[in-house]
Amino acid sequence: MRILFIGDVVGSPGRNMINTYVPKLQKKYKAHVTIINGENAASGKGITEKIYRSFLEVGANAVTLGNHSWDNKEIFEFIEDAKYLVRPANFPDQTPGKGYCFLNLNGIEIAIINLQGRTFLPPLDCPFQKADELIKEIQKRTNIIFVDFHAEATSEKQAMGWYLDGKVSVVVGTHTHVQTADNRILPNGTAYITDVGMTGPYDGILGVEREAVLKRFLTSLPVRFEVMKGREQLSGVVVDVDPKTGKAQKIERILINEDHPFLSEF
Amino acid sequence: MRILFIGDVVGSPGRNMINTYVPKLQKKYKAHVTIINGENAASGKGITEKIYRSFLEVGANAVTLGNHSWDNKEIFEFIEDAKYLVRPANFPDQTPGKGYCFLNLNGIEIAIINLQGRTFLPPLDCPFQKADELIKEIQKRTNIIFVDFHAEATSEKQAMGWYLDGKVSVVVGTHTHVQTADNRILPNGTAYITDVGMTGPYDGILGVEREAVLKRFLTSLPVRFEVMKGREQLSGVVVDVDPKTGKAQKIERILINEDHPFLSEF
Amino acid sequence: MRILFIGDVVGSPGRNMINTYVPKLQKKYKAHVTIINGENAASGKGITEKIYRSFLEVGANAVTLGNHSWDNKEIFEFIEDAKYLVRPANFPDQTPGKGYCFLNLNGIEIAIINLQGRTFLPPLDCPFQKADELIKEIQKRTNIIFVDFHAEATSEKQAMGWYLDGKVSVVVGTHTHVQTADNRILPNGTAYITDVGMTGPYDGILGVEREAVLKRFLTSLPVRFEVMKGREQLSGVVVDVDPKTGKAQKIERILINEDHPFLSEF
Amino acid sequence: MRILFIGDVVGSPGRNMINTYVPKLQKKYKAHVTIINGENAASGKGITEKIYRSFLEVGANAVTLGNHSWDNKEIFEFIEDAKYLVRPANFPDQTPGKGYCFLNLNGIEIAIINLQGRTFLPPLDCPFQKADELIKEIQKRTNIIFVDFHAEATSEKQAMGWYLDGKVSVVVGTHTHVQTADNRILPNGTAYITDVGMTGPYDGILGVEREAVLKRFLTSLPVRFEVMKGREQLSGVVVDVDPKTGKAQKIERILINEDHPFLSEF
Ligand SMILES: [Fe+2]
Ligand SMILES: [Fe+2]
Ligand SMILES: [Fe+2]
Ligand SMILES: [Fe+2]
Ligand SMILES: [Fe+2]
Ligand SMILES: [Fe+2]
Ligand SMILES: [Fe+2]
Ligand SMILES: [Fe+2]
Repeated sequence: MRILFIGDVVGSPGRNMINTYVPKLQKKYKAHVTIINGENAASGKGITEKIYRSFLEVGANAVTLGNHSWDNKEIFEFIEDAKYLVRPANFPDQTPGKGYCFLNLNGIEIAIINLQGRTFLPPLDCPFQKADELIKEIQKRTNIIFVDFHAEATSEKQAMGWYLDGKVSVVVGTHTHVQTADNRILPNGTAYITDVGMTGPYDGILGVEREAVLKRFLTSLPVRFEVMKGREQLSGVVVDVDPKTGKAQKIERILINEDHPFLSEF
Repeated sequence: MRILFIGDVVGSPGRNMINTYVPKLQKKYKAHVTIINGENAASGKGITEKIYRSFLEVGANAVTLGNHSWDNKEIFEFIEDAKYLVRPANFPDQTPGKGYCFLNLNGIEIAIINLQGRTFLPPLDCPFQKADELIKEIQKRTNIIFVDFHAEATSEKQAMGWYLDGKVSVVVGTHTHVQTADNRILPNGTAYITDVGMTGPYDGILGVEREAVLKRFLTSLPVRFEVMKGREQLSGVVVDVDPKTGKAQKIERILINEDHPFLSEF
Repeated sequence: MRILFIGDVVGSPGRNMINTYVPKLQKKYKAHVTIINGENAASGKGITEKIYRSFLEVGANAVTLGNHSWDNKEIFEFIEDAKYLVRPANFPDQTPGKGYCFLNLNGIEIAIINLQGRTFLPPLDCPFQKADELIKEIQKRTNIIFVDFHAEATSEKQAMGWYLDGKVSVVVGTHTHVQTADNRILPNGTAYITDVGMTGPYDGILGVEREAVLKRFLTSLPVRFEVMKGREQLSGVVVDVDPKTGKAQKIERILINEDHPFLSEF
Repeated sequence: MRILFIGDVVGSPGRNMINTYVPKLQKKYKAHVTIINGENAASGKGITEKIYRSFLEVGANAVTLGNHSWDNKEIFEFIEDAKYLVRPANFPDQTPGKGYCFLNLNGIEIAIINLQGRTFLPPLDCPFQKADELIKEIQKRTNIIFVDFHAEATSEKQAMGWYLDGKVSVVVGTHTHVQTADNRILPNGTAYITDVGMTGPYDGILGVEREAVLKRFLTSLPVRFEVMKGREQLSGVVVDVDPKTGKAQKIERILINEDHPFLSEF
């Protein structure tokens, strides 16, 4: 089973890349499942129902979120009915939406979990403990488990990777918007990467208009962040999982931008 | 001119990799200059004079540091005399040591600057302002300038890359201990990568013994961090700079571990 | 019922003040219960069994802790047997020790809860949710409930006060080591103060030797913190609670130092 | 010389208290100088020109600010011309406005400095170093120096108090919105208090509507903060300074609310 995952989609530049390349990537990689992190899909801040549906239409099977889940207030109106939209599971119990979902692919079930880190991020329930709880529950149905761990600190993300090694199929990091080069299969069969990277502007700062971010760092004055215009990029990974054991076999990075053009053939 | 840079060396596993591979990498890449970030070289915490000298002996021309500069108290005894040891320049004015140094390579001068970020890290003087000051001074002597920006947040690091684009030859990030895959030449000729990654244990968490880090995240109790034993890795970059203009032409990542074995030939 | 509470005892200067003044304060105020926060009692870092026992001997009925609970490793050896030692309740479930205890005073039960904040402090379980859980359990036995909320941010502390107003008898803040002047009875009968303040050196910085703290702020270099010598102070509150309803009737501040000498008579 | 200082004015409840009580306090205390911290005066977020002018009209001689200085964009239009409006001096050099001002009271000059802390607050230039610079400059004209240190951490504030003891007349803390009870004259003649406290709603959380703040802590979801309605309070200090030496002689706290009614007579 081959899983295609696309990292944090930022604004319309990110959505353009999704529309253009997800079909091509699915074809190129013969992906069975496509998952997109959409926490920045609406102007960099949250997601709308329309965007969520557009992701499903272009071929996504599930959409994960992160600390920006709630930035666009529309989320509260549609999250309960959005069957394949997953927000971090370690928000408090009464939080709208859900922290994991199941997909059924010709009889094979795969679970998608979203978790959020706590280092350099606001307080939440413990993501490690929450992972344990969910996995215990999920394993009654399937051992193919995909985790999007949305976190800032490399320490917390590597810790989660090693903690879940052998318990889940995949742990991918999101949130830093920069793809890391440490994709690997951990000793007990979990595919891991610290961060998948961002899908959106290629020449912004994490996707944001550069002048505003630089002004912020140089002056400490408040600024308004807008999504950068111009060249675009896509960041993703493709992971092969043995559907019988749930063990990962291979994790490969995808990076598409002017310096790394898309090649339809291997 | 070809510059070889090796990211945060962690403890004896990191030093082993330096001793084994720096000579091979210098030969393979025909590097003219070798720079090593040594902030974690002494048991993960700071650096000693003996280690600093061993880096020079194995072929390093300069050693940079970071937030762990002062962890090993020995530093205060030798930093003033260590001509090629550079600590973050944006510590207050009276801080021991220096924030940049010059190398002379057959008449061609190259300046090495070390700066430390402030996002998710302790307060320091503004690294952007400090960069401006130093560059103004340095450009009187050379336009080949190498910056090791030791910082946590991807936003601050990308901001520095774009801010210095066209003013310096190279901006490499260090500190997160995970190599990023975003190495590129920015539009005005500066080579950039968000993080070079770590040189040391391959199976630890940022180089640290896993059990302790996991215990910390799971229990919030104090733990003692030790350098992980076992398999090792090396992370670096090699950058080509036009000695006439100071513009970078190419930045390539280096990753050596069991999953990415060293190849002596291209 | 009158409750005497003494804020964070720091090192031997703090213990001196406890030994000298707790008996006098108990007599002066005719206190029925005495509670001491002892998280810094052992050289500023944690507590030992000997110190814990000395607090009971001088008249304390219970000892609360905080983020420094685990600084002195001895705690792990005696916490399970220390019946009246309470560490923050919102540490993970398997944490040694307990987060609340009961005292029986001639047939009247009082519960002591210790909670730790999360703003500007390391991640823990939600203190608000944990408070709800514990109070639900405790109210089966008593409605006299004393909460030591060990937290940094004034917002989080006031939030806890208002959140628990009417559900517990007392919410006192600890941790900032500076007594606040906002002691009051909230509208539903809970006595509240943002911080009780510190018991220990009068001329240090939060009880710590001044030169080291200033060096830290001025140089950003590592320093070793020692408890300040010299003049001493004691910070506390005395709270009157109606034993029938559990409602607080009065909360008064206590501050003893050279500028505010102890008066044995009202 | 007697200085009246009023802590962070929050929204219209705070402005009501200023209008009602500043004249009464000036009369009661025979204050020669009145200073108001106005960083939250406009709906809790920044200040407008109209509010600044209303403070001067009610008798303020100078208005200080803090981390919320720039929240209301109007500030950028009038700060350069607002002679007695002082924003934190340790913003970068090119920041609009100024970090200190002089008042002339019948020939006696007093300098007002505003500084902002860096612990648990965004990066800025070092407030200790900046204080040194400014004091050196100011002492050419006067030795009566009033410092409003706008900071979060009690450690940083006490450190500033002790650092400036004997160099300035007064160091008052602002920002935490809770008055502390540690007002004192330090050994070398500087009046000090960790925080003067807030002027505005008496029943909010730091002046903010309670439900929103509690929702934030309980759910981690985004909320909109509004100034609380209802009962009001005023927090201030009055400090006596010897105009010849610049040494403080006395610092007294002022707290006006329903539990501490204003008394026109001593
Ligand atoms: Fe994101
Ligand atoms: Fe995010
Ligand atoms: Fe490092
Ligand atoms: Fe570092
Ligand atoms: Fe404490
Ligand atoms: Fe504490
Ligand atoms: Fe304020
Ligand atoms: Fe503030």
